[in-house]
Amino acid sequence: MDTPHIETRLIDGKAFAAGLRARIGAEVAALGAAHPGFKPGLAVVLVGSDPASEVYVRNKAAQTVEAGMASFEHKLPADTREEDLLALVRALNADPAVNGILVQLPLPAQIDAMKVLAAIDPEKDVDGFHVINAGRLAVGLDALVPCTPLGCVMLLKHHLGSLSGLKAVVVGRSNIVGKPVAQLLLKEDCTVTIAHSRTRDLPGECRHADILIAAVGRPEMIRGDWIKPGATVIDVGINRVPREDGKTRLVGDVAFAEAQGIAGLITPVPGGVGPMTIACLLANTLTAAKRQAGIA
Amino acid sequence: MDTPHIETRLIDGKAFAAGLRARIGAEVAALGAAHPGFKPGLAVVLVGSDPASEVYVRNKAAQTVEAGMASFEHKLPADTREEDLLALVRALNADPAVNGILVQLPLPAQIDAMKVLAAIDPEKDVDGFHVINAGRLAVGLDALVPCTPLGCVMLLKHHLGSLSGLKAVVVGRSNIVGKPVAQLLLKEDCTVTIAHSRTRDLPGECRHADILIAAVGRPEMIRGDWIKPGATVIDVGINRVPREDGKTRLVGDVAFAEAQGIAGLITPVPGGVGPMTIACLLANTLTAAKRQAGIA
Repeated sequence: MDTPHIETRLIDGKAFAAGLRARIGAEVAALGAAHPGFKPGLAVVLVGSDPASEVYVRNKAAQTVEAGMASFEHKLPADTREEDLLALVRALNADPAVNGILVQLPLPAQIDAMKVLAAIDPEKDVDGFHVINAGRLAVGLDALVPCTPLGCVMLLKHHLGSLSGLKAVVVGRSNIVGKPVAQLLLKEDCTVTIAHSRTRDLPGECRHADILIAAVGRPEMIRGDWIKPGATVIDVGINRVPREDGKTRLVGDVAFAEAQGIAGLITPVPGGVGPMTIACLLANTLTAAKRQAGIA
Repeated sequence: MDTPHIETRLIDGKAFAAGLRARIGAEVAALGAAHPGFKPGLAVVLVGSDPASEVYVRNKAAQTVEAGMASFEHKLPADTREEDLLALVRALNADPAVNGILVQLPLPAQIDAMKVLAAIDPEKDVDGFHVINAGRLAVGLDALVPCTPLGCVMLLKHHLGSLSGLKAVVVGRSNIVGKPVAQLLLKEDCTVTIAHSRTRDLPGECRHADILIAAVGRPEMIRGDWIKPGATVIDVGINRVPREDGKTRLVGDVAFAEAQGIAGLITPVPGGVGPMTIACLLANTLTAAKRQAGIA
């Protein structure tokens, strides 16, 4: 069989995220002018000093301020007791200047992450991990939706327009990406398949996908010949692998080079889905602030 | 292509449900002996006098009592005000003799059903419709699960054993059946596809299914040649259609006669999934009562 020649185009998540952040900044400014005192605030809580988390929290804070929002950083020592973190969360729940609360994961072993996430006011749960937001998403009510899935669907709608009737295959079933992105795609009227490590014919499932979402966290697991010619591929994976020169490089869950000439559209790693996550965190913070202020 | 000859076997939901109710009754009796005073109680609230709902509520009450549980029936007039129904729900939430609360749907137009369902204590929400139970199911925590999906998966596990790796196609995406049954099948390690009215090639999707769940509410929509030879077919539809003699008969969402010789296993309508719903309501009431009493 001849493979049709397809020119694979890149989905530039970095550029789209920058545009989204600019639009959020403009809306924050306009709402601030129309509603004096309106200024969305995002509180980020970091426990311990994991270097990757510190970089990520710093980026979040910088982009929050750039968008005209207030950023509140809370850095706690690695030996913080669960009850003290819970007390901080309750204080942030009660603080009217704080519209969104994000507790950076992972947390140290002495703290039950589920308990902390459950303590966040669902209206301020801009990570969308609270069980009430998962439930609201599941039954089709307005919810704060996890940032990475939200970013995936924004990129898809921007490039494809209506997703109605398209066949989407989601590889991975985590609570953070796979399951919520499946819910969002179902809401967009896709036919949705959720595949995972127990799936019997994963290549075969993937080959049916008009939209293929890879969210398994295994470097380059999804091969070029698993992709339907012309499909749109969203690669959520960010895996660090050794390079020949002894350094490391980032790769996705999709064998990017093999996908060239087969996929119609594909997100690169880095520069694809990654930058969307913080932009969607800001979008969620603005959404939360508007709801809390009663602004439609 | 020759169609292989397959002897289609019936899944007898009526017999399985009777056995389940007997097992529930035995467990209620044993727990009552071990924990004096333990007696699960189910409150059913019916607003108005829809004849079908009245029959259903009567059956629920009879089977509840048969299983050794307490049944509390609350019949309210059709013109009941929302605030009075909400007050009743709050009273039932506070009543320690009531472990499960079911408000029969549909409700009259002056009452916001979503508001009423949201008022039920999630720990007593034996219909599994509360957003907190939907969220707990979505993220994989212990939840009270809607009765019909629970019944479907019980029948599947009884007849097939492990469902791991099987390809399940769910046709229909309601909050009551399609979406929760998809979550349950994912938890059982099925590869799960959710198809619906916007699906482009519904026959093609169905033909991939080892497990085909029909939950669309359209009489005999799913044809025999949409079924993969040997597949297990669970027909959730209960549709009343005219008979030639002017009376009516019940049919499912699957063309049952056409499925003979193709499906490996199929639930009939009536007598398949239908009887499982009340049995699972009793199972949920027992689960809720045990959790409330702190019995593992």
